[in-house]
Amino acid sequence: MRDLEISNQELSDIAEEALGLAKSYWASLEGRRAYPSTTSENTTELFSRPWLENGRGREILQDFKSIAEHARPGTGRFFGYVVGSGEPIGALGELLAAVLNQNVTSWRSAPAATSIERAVVGWLAEAVGCAGFTGSLCGGGSMANLMALAMAREAKLPANETGVQPCVVYASEQVHMSIPKAVALLGIGRKNLRLIPVDDKFKMRTDALQAAITADREAGNVPIAIVATVGTIVSGAIDPLPEIADVARREALWMHVDGAYGGMAALAVPEKFQGLSFADSLSLDAHKWLYQPLDCGCLLNRHPDIARTTFSHSDDYVRILSEDPTEAFAFFEESIELSRRFRALKLWMSLQFHGRGAYREAIRRDLDHAQILAQTIALHPELERLAPVSLSAVCFRHRSKDNEAILRRVIARGRVYLSNATINGQFVLRACFVNHRTTPDDVRAIVSEIIAAAEELNC
Amino acid sequence: MRDLEISNQELSDIAEEALGLAKSYWASLEGRRAYPSTTSENTTELFSRPWLENGRGREILQDFKSIAEHARPGTGRFFGYVVGSGEPIGALGELLAAVLNQNVTSWRSAPAATSIERAVVGWLAEAVGCAGFTGSLCGGGSMANLMALAMAREAKLPANETGVQPCVVYASEQVHMSIPKAVALLGIGRKNLRLIPVDDKFKMRTDALQAAITADREAGNVPIAIVATVGTIVSGAIDPLPEIADVARREALWMHVDGAYGGMAALAVPEKFQGLSFADSLSLDAHKWLYQPLDCGCLLNRHPDIARTTFSHSDDYVRILSEDPTEAFAFFEESIELSRRFRALKLWMSLQFHGRGAYREAIRRDLDHAQILAQTIALHPELERLAPVSLSAVCFRHRSKDNEAILRRVIARGRVYLSNATINGQFVLRACFVNHRTTPDDVRAIVSEIIAAAEELNC
Repeated sequence: MRDLEISNQELSDIAEEALGLAKSYWASLEGRRAYPSTTSENTTELFSRPWLENGRGREILQDFKSIAEHARPGTGRFFGYVVGSGEPIGALGELLAAVLNQNVTSWRSAPAATSIERAVVGWLAEAVGCAGFTGSLCGGGSMANLMALAMAREAKLPANETGVQPCVVYASEQVHMSIPKAVALLGIGRKNLRLIPVDDKFKMRTDALQAAITADREAGNVPIAIVATVGTIVSGAIDPLPEIADVARREALWMHVDGAYGGMAALAVPEKFQGLSFADSLSLDAHKWLYQPLDCGCLLNRHPDIARTTFSHSDDYVRILSEDPTEAFAFFEESIELSRRFRALKLWMSLQFHGRGAYREAIRRDLDHAQILAQTIALHPELERLAPVSLSAVCFRHRSKDNEAILRRVIARGRVYLSNATINGQFVLRACFVNHRTTPDDVRAIVSEIIAAAEELNC
Repeated sequence: MRDLEISNQELSDIAEEALGLAKSYWASLEGRRAYPSTTSENTTELFSRPWLENGRGREILQDFKSIAEHARPGTGRFFGYVVGSGEPIGALGELLAAVLNQNVTSWRSAPAATSIERAVVGWLAEAVGCAGFTGSLCGGGSMANLMALAMAREAKLPANETGVQPCVVYASEQVHMSIPKAVALLGIGRKNLRLIPVDDKFKMRTDALQAAITADREAGNVPIAIVATVGTIVSGAIDPLPEIADVARREALWMHVDGAYGGMAALAVPEKFQGLSFADSLSLDAHKWLYQPLDCGCLLNRHPDIARTTFSHSDDYVRILSEDPTEAFAFFEESIELSRRFRALKLWMSLQFHGRGAYREAIRRDLDHAQILAQTIALHPELERLAPVSLSAVCFRHRSKDNEAILRRVIARGRVYLSNATINGQFVLRACFVNHRTTPDDVRAIVSEIIAAAEELNC
């Protein structure tokens, strides 16, 4: 039986071997299939295993190769969902964060890490034109949206002490599934989420929003919040923030902006994001369009007092002895988590390593790639685009073939990976560019692969 | 301006430098102070910095030294809160997880990672005597407890569609702050959390629990769930699970067990955890008493159908095309998060590397260390213990001195770190052992440091 302690020499050797695996993997990326050739039988056979009494020692590193072979690789030819590309300096940041193993509950528990997280949150706020917003990092958009709506509820119709009272939340019918999920978790009930119709560009119709609020007030219902989306998950539409902010102000509602997919693009194209700073709260995902390894969500807000009212339920065992406001600062009084890992270190390293300009350019290239794809589709008579390209998501279909069958073949061919969505009840193909490794050739491969797959269907 | 792409050679060089920092840090651990000598002025000066337009490149690695100097180190002499020791093989697992950058939403998005997570969740369940439970990894106890109570609510008084109805949750007055926080978030209202008195061992009094439920029913209130705690945060008390399970069964209530601190000790001392498998849901934290780097919480449960009812709000854009049950599996339909990092890889590597026996022994040593401390306290006339030592937390005080002043001095001396808690309104010192690096000498240093600090107060 092995002790948990290992010698520095043994650890050093294993660490070098692990790093060698990482380096080989990075070097192999471009040669990999865009999606692994695997089945549930493969992964069950490889990875169903008991936890044995005796340690297997260093041989466990040998699993890495088969894990990588049955994993989605971060190649420049993966265009499914909204999946960032895992910038390697960020990955080294994750190593160092795990080595330091800070519990970033509060300054008292993690002085440097807390100061660094507060700094990088400020960078993100400033990068998207929301300087002065505060907030914290979290697991992702689902958590950020949940926290935002919890704050909205507590600001408008306090529920923490006595329980939820009936209230209503508004979002467009293109809203991300994490919003109905948050509304349900918070006890508001999904039937109290009004899904507002969108215009032909998939943006929320402000007239319909206003009408819904008015109708609710006339029925005696209590509106509390509007969720605007910057970068809807299907087509990347950006809701009209200034008009929504006007409604929110007039109606005294909380305005949350879900920018999990698109928000970081305000760094590159701020003109598309006018009105973002009117938000009361804003979700961002650095593991999407800031290319960081998972996980790295962020909730920014303009109301730290309401954050504390919403999330502060502290016990004496975490009572902080300091009078200094920085030293008394606790993330757990302004967010859901208590134990929190040092997510900020990868941002600290990766963002400074490359500089803001490099990130701005990478986002611009993703936007260009979407335009290249749209142009290629326009030139092909068998293909049609089904939504405007507002950011970097492109939705399209083959006019005459079974698109679901095409998608299966494209994925099986392994050169590019797309995912699917539904527009006006129709199954559509969807490519999304949030990947610093993608080249224009990778983009052009999308249409040629679709056409090749469609031709295979004829055979 | 730098591009985000870096050459394999440059990346290799930087990665070696980062690993060198990690190795030096590990080798330096035992020589470090148990808590850094730092102030808010230090960390503000060091870590307030703008995100510059141009990249700083490799020089950002030079920050690591000052970050480590202003961070809580994972030495064997840190006994504050419940902080695991960051097992290094687990940290290497975090590197490889960040390199692979899987988004473990579902098998479709991450085949190997999904199979591995399902395997390690099974290991944890089996290790604590709950074979057959399913579940998922999450950020920590706060998230696991929130998910558990969301499931309880949905199982007993469905709220997702129409909103919360008045209902009541029961827990002991020693319950962790994440439970009132979850009750508030779920819209139940903290006034509907009944804090049941404890006995002289800080265990929930089942007679009082039953009386409270009966009184609520007579008043027309609707009980839905009981939260038992295995390892209360202050003293490590284990609530009487078989008796609580009897009440839950008789009253048809959900029984959640918060084992974030203590649950994993069932691997080493199962006799203390009789009745754990009666739980409907169980929170565990592998980043606490399984020594893993943050974050690695887990919610186990016996009701995957209720998990799906509670958390499934899926959109077409994540619609899974497979009919195979493994390939159609999606974590986001059974938990809160959508984007999810590959938390399971560190468990896969670290747990197999060392083997189950090594973990069992490490937990036993922690239990022994608590007994050693209790014995040392008993031998010292100026010290008194204030709670039984049920697991590995020891609460005590100096009989005649200002214990808050002693604690400040102990921390400033830097040899050991303790935290504080409140017992019967009294400020107490608290040491908790969940650290594979701790030696008996480290344990003995606690009392000598307390006495030395107390003597300094006389000067």
